[in-house]
Amino acid sequence: MPKVSEDHLAARRSQILDGARRCFAEYGYDGATVRRLEEVTGLSRGAIFHHFKDKDGLFLALAHEDATRMADVVAHEGLVQVMRDMLAQPDQFDWLGTRLEIARRLRNDPDFRRSWSQRSAELTEATMARLARQKSAGRLRDDVPTDVLIGYLDLVLDGLVARIASGHAGDNLSAVLDLVEESVRRRD
Amino acid sequence: MPKVSEDHLAARRSQILDGARRCFAEYGYDGATVRRLEEVTGLSRGAIFHHFKDKDGLFLALAHEDATRMADVVAHEGLVQVMRDMLAQPDQFDWLGTRLEIARRLRNDPDFRRSWSQRSAELTEATMARLARQKSAGRLRDDVPTDVLIGYLDLVLDGLVARIASGHAGDNLSAVLDLVEESVRRRD
Repeated sequence: MPKVSEDHLAARRSQILDGARRCFAEYGYDGATVRRLEEVTGLSRGAIFHHFKDKDGLFLALAHEDATRMADVVAHEGLVQVMRDMLAQPDQFDWLGTRLEIARRLRNDPDFRRSWSQRSAELTEATMARLARQKSAGRLRDDVPTDVLIGYLDLVLDGLVARIASGHAGDNLSAVLDLVEESVRRRD
Repeated sequence: MPKVSEDHLAARRSQILDGARRCFAEYGYDGATVRRLEEVTGLSRGAIFHHFKDKDGLFLALAHEDATRMADVVAHEGLVQVMRDMLAQPDQFDWLGTRLEIARRLRNDPDFRRSWSQRSAELTEATMARLARQKSAGRLRDDVPTDVLIGYLDLVLDGLVARIASGHAGDNLSAVLDLVEESVRRRD
């Protein structure tokens, strides 16, 4: 019965990813040792790395999972809503702090950078499609090229990730996101 | 002749800071070991830690040096100009990648967070003063509270630091900063 087996594999994969997410959030990329990954998932290293090639593989799978979820929100409500969600539940995005820790690797390791970009391509595409629709509907400002608007929203998102990772996500950021949203909208 | 001695101390201090900046940029916070700090400064650990209490002290002194420089630019040309400078010479701001690496410490270590905030208070004050002047001169939009505008510019700055740290500072960021600048300006 291959179906049962596939369900089982998917559940196991999901169990590993959930544990790894907590582990990265708590200990960071370097601190998420194989031993800690075993503890937090309740599985042996053999079982873990049967599903994922190595720690990088786990990391990229988490990035992919996030990108898929975010792409879904982007498609219906836009990238600023993704940021509002992050702001509302910063605990769920704690693990993104590891994204900052790996900044040096992104800079110096072309293979890793390529894998990382592939995983987030889905989000970029969803953002581009959303902005194209908004533009057609006359809701997007048309005096600035769309790629600049995307670059702008991405930059703000990176800032928000950094802010959440260092625990400074409070205060007036909701009003700040209103300003961000308004600055890509067409003015009446 | 105490004057000569003070000059000497200042020069030595500056020599240490320049070396530490390169060391942090190349190896990151954890990778900037005492041995590497000795190599890059050409000084003994005794000499280095005569001037700075410990590695944290060095790190915070660099943050303070940057904040002072940036505050000066902010006072005359605004925070967006600081960002344009960073974009024009990303190599000079490579060391800021370490700021991302220490995100977890900023979150979990209240003493460190307090010291960090003190060091950057100067920049925050300069930004507030600049925006207050711009507002009086009628150049700042007045439909959004000034603290929200500051939060907005800070968020974009954090995004830019993250971008430079991961080596993705190219493409259309200059046009993106035009958009940022325009969105805090008063509309005619």
